[in-house]
Amino acid sequence: MKKGIGNCSVGDAFDNFLLIKGSSRGVASNGKPFLTLIFRDATGEIEAKLWDATKEDEELFVPEQIVKVSGEVNQFRGKPQLKIFSVRPSQPTDGVQVSDFVEKAPVEKEALMEKLTEAIFEMKNSSLQRIVRAFIKKYQEALLTYPAAAKNHHEYVSGLAHHIVSMLALAKELHHLYPQTNKDLLYAGVILHDLGKIKELSGVVTTSYSLEGKLMGHIPIMVEEIGDMAKALQIEGEEVLILQHLILSHHGKAEWGSPKPPLIREAELLHLIDLIDARMNMLNRSLEKVKPGEFTERMFALDNRSFYKPLFEEQ
Amino acid sequence: MKKGIGNCSVGDAFDNFLLIKGSSRGVASNGKPFLTLIFRDATGEIEAKLWDATKEDEELFVPEQIVKVSGEVNQFRGKPQLKIFSVRPSQPTDGVQVSDFVEKAPVEKEALMEKLTEAIFEMKNSSLQRIVRAFIKKYQEALLTYPAAAKNHHEYVSGLAHHIVSMLALAKELHHLYPQTNKDLLYAGVILHDLGKIKELSGVVTTSYSLEGKLMGHIPIMVEEIGDMAKALQIEGEEVLILQHLILSHHGKAEWGSPKPPLIREAELLHLIDLIDARMNMLNRSLEKVKPGEFTERMFALDNRSFYKPLFEEQ
Amino acid sequence: MKKGIGNCSVGDAFDNFLLIKGSSRGVASNGKPFLTLIFRDATGEIEAKLWDATKEDEELFVPEQIVKVSGEVNQFRGKPQLKIFSVRPSQPTDGVQVSDFVEKAPVEKEALMEKLTEAIFEMKNSSLQRIVRAFIKKYQEALLTYPAAAKNHHEYVSGLAHHIVSMLALAKELHHLYPQTNKDLLYAGVILHDLGKIKELSGVVTTSYSLEGKLMGHIPIMVEEIGDMAKALQIEGEEVLILQHLILSHHGKAEWGSPKPPLIREAELLHLIDLIDARMNMLNRSLEKVKPGEFTERMFALDNRSFYKPLFEEQ
Amino acid sequence: MKKGIGNCSVGDAFDNFLLIKGSSRGVASNGKPFLTLIFRDATGEIEAKLWDATKEDEELFVPEQIVKVSGEVNQFRGKPQLKIFSVRPSQPTDGVQVSDFVEKAPVEKEALMEKLTEAIFEMKNSSLQRIVRAFIKKYQEALLTYPAAAKNHHEYVSGLAHHIVSMLALAKELHHLYPQTNKDLLYAGVILHDLGKIKELSGVVTTSYSLEGKLMGHIPIMVEEIGDMAKALQIEGEEVLILQHLILSHHGKAEWGSPKPPLIREAELLHLIDLIDARMNMLNRSLEKVKPGEFTERMFALDNRSFYKPLFEEQ
Amino acid sequence: MKKGIGNCSVGDAFDNFLLIKGSSRGVASNGKPFLTLIFRDATGEIEAKLWDATKEDEELFVPEQIVKVSGEVNQFRGKPQLKIFSVRPSQPTDGVQVSDFVEKAPVEKEALMEKLTEAIFEMKNSSLQRIVRAFIKKYQEALLTYPAAAKNHHEYVSGLAHHIVSMLALAKELHHLYPQTNKDLLYAGVILHDLGKIKELSGVVTTSYSLEGKLMGHIPIMVEEIGDMAKALQIEGEEVLILQHLILSHHGKAEWGSPKPPLIREAELLHLIDLIDARMNMLNRSLEKVKPGEFTERMFALDNRSFYKPLFEEQ
Amino acid sequence: MKKGIGNCSVGDAFDNFLLIKGSSRGVASNGKPFLTLIFRDATGEIEAKLWDATKEDEELFVPEQIVKVSGEVNQFRGKPQLKIFSVRPSQPTDGVQVSDFVEKAPVEKEALMEKLTEAIFEMKNSSLQRIVRAFIKKYQEALLTYPAAAKNHHEYVSGLAHHIVSMLALAKELHHLYPQTNKDLLYAGVILHDLGKIKELSGVVTTSYSLEGKLMGHIPIMVEEIGDMAKALQIEGEEVLILQHLILSHHGKAEWGSPKPPLIREAELLHLIDLIDARMNMLNRSLEKVKPGEFTERMFALDNRSFYKPLFEEQ
Repeated sequence: MKKGIGNCSVGDAFDNFLLIKGSSRGVASNGKPFLTLIFRDATGEIEAKLWDATKEDEELFVPEQIVKVSGEVNQFRGKPQLKIFSVRPSQPTDGVQVSDFVEKAPVEKEALMEKLTEAIFEMKNSSLQRIVRAFIKKYQEALLTYPAAAKNHHEYVSGLAHHIVSMLALAKELHHLYPQTNKDLLYAGVILHDLGKIKELSGVVTTSYSLEGKLMGHIPIMVEEIGDMAKALQIEGEEVLILQHLILSHHGKAEWGSPKPPLIREAELLHLIDLIDARMNMLNRSLEKVKPGEFTERMFALDNRSFYKPLFEEQ
Repeated sequence: MKKGIGNCSVGDAFDNFLLIKGSSRGVASNGKPFLTLIFRDATGEIEAKLWDATKEDEELFVPEQIVKVSGEVNQFRGKPQLKIFSVRPSQPTDGVQVSDFVEKAPVEKEALMEKLTEAIFEMKNSSLQRIVRAFIKKYQEALLTYPAAAKNHHEYVSGLAHHIVSMLALAKELHHLYPQTNKDLLYAGVILHDLGKIKELSGVVTTSYSLEGKLMGHIPIMVEEIGDMAKALQIEGEEVLILQHLILSHHGKAEWGSPKPPLIREAELLHLIDLIDARMNMLNRSLEKVKPGEFTERMFALDNRSFYKPLFEEQ
Repeated sequence: MKKGIGNCSVGDAFDNFLLIKGSSRGVASNGKPFLTLIFRDATGEIEAKLWDATKEDEELFVPEQIVKVSGEVNQFRGKPQLKIFSVRPSQPTDGVQVSDFVEKAPVEKEALMEKLTEAIFEMKNSSLQRIVRAFIKKYQEALLTYPAAAKNHHEYVSGLAHHIVSMLALAKELHHLYPQTNKDLLYAGVILHDLGKIKELSGVVTTSYSLEGKLMGHIPIMVEEIGDMAKALQIEGEEVLILQHLILSHHGKAEWGSPKPPLIREAELLHLIDLIDARMNMLNRSLEKVKPGEFTERMFALDNRSFYKPLFEEQ
Repeated sequence: MKKGIGNCSVGDAFDNFLLIKGSSRGVASNGKPFLTLIFRDATGEIEAKLWDATKEDEELFVPEQIVKVSGEVNQFRGKPQLKIFSVRPSQPTDGVQVSDFVEKAPVEKEALMEKLTEAIFEMKNSSLQRIVRAFIKKYQEALLTYPAAAKNHHEYVSGLAHHIVSMLALAKELHHLYPQTNKDLLYAGVILHDLGKIKELSGVVTTSYSLEGKLMGHIPIMVEEIGDMAKALQIEGEEVLILQHLILSHHGKAEWGSPKPPLIREAELLHLIDLIDARMNMLNRSLEKVKPGEFTERMFALDNRSFYKPLFEEQ
Repeated sequence: MKKGIGNCSVGDAFDNFLLIKGSSRGVASNGKPFLTLIFRDATGEIEAKLWDATKEDEELFVPEQIVKVSGEVNQFRGKPQLKIFSVRPSQPTDGVQVSDFVEKAPVEKEALMEKLTEAIFEMKNSSLQRIVRAFIKKYQEALLTYPAAAKNHHEYVSGLAHHIVSMLALAKELHHLYPQTNKDLLYAGVILHDLGKIKELSGVVTTSYSLEGKLMGHIPIMVEEIGDMAKALQIEGEEVLILQHLILSHHGKAEWGSPKPPLIREAELLHLIDLIDARMNMLNRSLEKVKPGEFTERMFALDNRSFYKPLFEEQ
Repeated sequence: MKKGIGNCSVGDAFDNFLLIKGSSRGVASNGKPFLTLIFRDATGEIEAKLWDATKEDEELFVPEQIVKVSGEVNQFRGKPQLKIFSVRPSQPTDGVQVSDFVEKAPVEKEALMEKLTEAIFEMKNSSLQRIVRAFIKKYQEALLTYPAAAKNHHEYVSGLAHHIVSMLALAKELHHLYPQTNKDLLYAGVILHDLGKIKELSGVVTTSYSLEGKLMGHIPIMVEEIGDMAKALQIEGEEVLILQHLILSHHGKAEWGSPKPPLIREAELLHLIDLIDARMNMLNRSLEKVKPGEFTERMFALDNRSFYKPLFEEQ
């Protein structure tokens, strides 16, 4: 199999299909128009210039178009750039489709769904269980395809479900180590905590923020949804308020978007589990790209730190 | 009319009815029990010690009980304390009632209701108007009696409505000065912004925080209520989301409890109007208690500042 | 009337007079010199490149020179750039002058002066009134032409007076709503609060900071001026100190340049009025440029927020 | 068995042995001396006044003395106080000893040691294993008796080992969930991270800070010790530096005492594991003391939060 | 000579003259009035209670009255308290005066004045020299008696001049080490930087803040005074603005009261010299009170640190 | 002697030897490769483009190569750029060497060593003296050649020794002004405080951070080294701990990398001396480059301030 664009080094030749993620027109110093294209495949992204672009080119090379590109990877202002030798739109006979060019969770949807079902099955508190089950039913399709974020962590197809399932495993173990904790509450919090992202984010492939996402954010969206769902299911009792509190407080403090800090043991634990899984996801993916003895690129969501991969990892 | 307890100076004799706000038992250095009582009337509060308290005293002198007290105002550790000469529970024939001993807004409920009605009448956007009207109907009684806060500003009977009506006047003038602003949105935001306090606070007389208030806070409570109300009234369109955003963002920034900062012109203005009215209420009430040439006590909610009353205010 | 440069979209042709705001020489990758020109008119600014520039071009195309330009608006690195087809210096017969190319307040100088005079006429405290009147006399010309800032808000000809007059209207209404406030003090504070900008800023057209502005800032400059003026007018009494305090504290807190926070009721109100008028000016001008359903550009002075213009503003 | 002092409510009679933790002399308003005593047993602490104290009393009732006290639990300024009816020093025949009056970890020393041994046995990297084993040997006695802190979390006999063993269980599970992590490094970091506390804290019973603790802190102390140990064992290679980095960075950021933030994946995870175990220890012990439907006391080390115990925990 | 009150330990008898610094009336739990008195002499302060105080006592024992006291130093709530055996007002024949009871700089006024004169004599820039000389003349008496602050550092008679002279010595050496610095500017900045304290503080003996001090602060006060002085002396040129900038910026940053940070090399150095001398004054005076091997009390103005005096200082 | 590259202005011709500090390959818009070269000599740095670069060029023009360049200084995006007319590698006969192209301290190594020796000779505490002497011996060569930092201050050959010697002079004077301070401790702290940089930085010429520097930093490195050295010299006593504390705390607070703030008088003074010398070094070197009446470039390590050089400095 050919190398993906994210795995190419400066100097490598490239000849394969890519998805156009962005396209904008400029005028070169010689007065002629050119296109700045952002290509991507499942392994990464790269910028390219199409010099002396015609009107036709502008119409052909637009976002979400798949193209066949042949070129060479160069460096421009410290970042890789693809020097284009030739480029053409893909054709039906090429047998490629958009979903081939986006990154996916390393676990299949079916496996993710199974893990969710198992967790719900373990729950004993019927109020919490019914609410969770109703949400899974309501959002099943989106839940299994959405990313967990527009960038930073789990920003790939099925990232949301991958994040939830990974957190469920953590929650199970932590409940085992600290048996005083309420497992049902933890599970419910884990499964629902980021579900508001389905309304906050615009979609699966080219993810941005919806108007509701920008003006409300996924936390208040989900708090309201839980209230609505409980009314619809005619569930009463402290569980509803406590569950809303878990969602509301899961970012940990006001500066990070939680108007109330965790004031319930399981809320504190949910916040910490979320932190660990998000950070480990970012770290693992970033460290995968470097060799022992090297530092990763700086990661903004990790206080701009650059991590070191020890030499003895080689053994 | 006799002086209220809040207007007495050290050395003044006192002989009048007071409401017991708090009572706790202690043991003096001579081994005898005593009661620490917090008295209040509409003008203020004072602490007192009832030495050599009997079992009977403990049962008689409990919170919400009105008593006739005769004593003298002393100073203890820099704060006034009432030295009790005699104290007895009030009797039906005394003709006093709890509502005589709590502070009230300087405007009558009827006048406040009239101002609210006028504002709603001025609104032209029917979605916003219907939502606001429905809330006024739903919460009318509480809205007209609740304080706007447990302490700091408008912390008196009808304080919430007083704060709203004062802000409405400000909103009207600001809309006049900046005609680009949407008056209906401003009015709706002003009227609804703190309505969640009816659920956040425990009640009118001895106000504390409810469990819902502690775990959710009035902002998420009200955001959810607006969503519910819009669904109940079958109102759709951006007005609902925008109105929810106004409530969500009215504390101005994340550290102050708004997970989103104002991102709509009227949201920004609502935040500023709220700030002005809360601060002017605190300042005016605090400056009233000092003479020209003096500084007020430090006010925690105003960054612990102590304000000066200029001498030329005497003229 | 032809479109201003600030109203052009990418792709528009442009053929009109522009003022050169900045000019710098560079050398192209082909070794030939070129000029980077910043053009402006009353509606906005745009950058342009003059390729293959001669020595003569360098001498002709300098700041404050008006030119006739014909070209097309392109995009370069995400920002508009004017592609020059031809450019020539304006001639006396063109009938254009520098003042045509700068933005002005939407209110005429005479109207602004009238509002100021009215406000002073309303004042009853003769100490405050005399100080204010003397300053208006001393700085009348500059006061009526200076911007209120080098950027961010009211950054146009007569911006300072426009800001003051707008704040006076607000002060008048706030005094009406909170009659305990001292109107004379408020008016004096409003009129004088930013007058130090006349020394802090370098001038009206291409505004930068003076040495005094950089080393002292408008607040200490104005505090000293008020002291001097009071001595010159032989005015004594607390009014002078209080007025200096209002100027000193009007930025609200130390981090924002006020060594003392507001400790006088009217100082607090002055700070809030200033905040409202500056923010509404920024917001209104920024929202004017976008259509309903769109977000504005990020505004640095508003915590880098991007505001949304609701769809129902269209109605 | 009789109730411990930490389990008594206001009004309860008390008649049992207690350890004196503190004693100080005062003079009452009647001019007579009295002693303020702090008593403790394994369940908690309480203050008491011994009125009309003689010279002899002062000499008898000193810290670390065990006494037999009979009295009643009262309330003073909102905190419980023991009213003393009689008090006498314990005698050899009473059969009580200091170790009966201090709190201990809920797990026995032998079990803790066994868990440590198991973990070391699992390690495969011989450099890390040898260093860890050498430290266990060097500090075995202290490691199994020291608290993990002077206050806040695991502040009881064997608290340090209890904290380490609890973190090891967490580390094991996290390595299982994130198999990319280096288990040996994690284990070594967990076992050694707080060992410097043996030098930082003054001892097991009445724990305060040593001079070395105050001027250096446990982090730099332990970093130096690891360097020394590696030299003594003639171990070279990156493992030593990386292990020192894990210790150095385990508080997560500079403000919390780590001059370098975690820059190794396992360092980040060590920091998070430490956070979880410390917080869960505080939370569990605090929630144990309240009933469902109540809030805990405020916990300083948890941002002064007071946590709620849901009603449905009763089920 | 007898021990001062600041040098007494708990248990010491005391029999000497003291100055009353504060006096307030209370009522004891037995219903009888008592006086809380704050005594001081040149070595320190102590609190005392005068039980069963008569009307006559209240009139006799007032602030600024010198009294002869015999008593014993006790401990109350962790702080020393003087138990009074007898107390009487001093009489003319006692030969004591208020100035005997206040702390003074360890250098005589004449010596301080001489150092100031020398420094001015060294200056070569006549503008700076004339301004400095005029201020020394204007404020000579106050300059030589005022403290440098109400508390924290140099808070004793002649503290201001002591601080200035100490800083001049430092400035001289730093100019020697960094000869690029302008000595005249440094000297002028040092001598004038805190002169505004003469207006900011209320006086020499019982120092508090004046109204001008509270509303303006010594920095803006002095900036204005320098402007006035320069006008009076008809001095023009950049020296005046630069000198005002040195004063304005000498607290180093906005949060500490300097609206502009140092932007001139000598301004930066002035800030650092001020920091060193203030801190060394606090440190030296605090360390004098403890023995080698002990920690000082916490010092608020030094970030609440408690400093250690090494054992080897004994040698 | 010819002008250095750091002293050239835009428009100047240049014809001299330069050292290549960096080299990277790019592809121009015409598709041809070019090299971006960073040249330096002892006076500064400049960027240059070598257009149409051949494979041979790429091999010749690499870092640490000395070249003869003839060209002209141009401006590109606001920064100087050298337009290359011709460039060739230096030859043995040119008689140039790498050390000619790096900046050096303005004092010779021998003079620096002499000052160090003098200081050690003045010390009386033998424990401190022996430790210091042993370190000087251990690191003499590196100490006399290393820079004090990779950038910001004393970032030149022998910068570390220059910084130490300059601080020693300051320490001597401060000890003279505050004779209570312990001179030996101060001297030892000054000489050793930054010695850890020898391990933190990669070397003398093209200085970056070593792995140990990135994961540990020079402070913990040096604390450990002092402990080791004391053990090697069999020195015991509080001096070792106190000296380690001085190193540990010399950055002043946790946020700046000192896990403990200064808690010893000499530690506080060491921190302040370090601050002064680092800042004066930066300021003097930056102000040297501008004329009276101008501002320096912004300096990141001085809170991004730009300093003004007064006009009267010309005299």
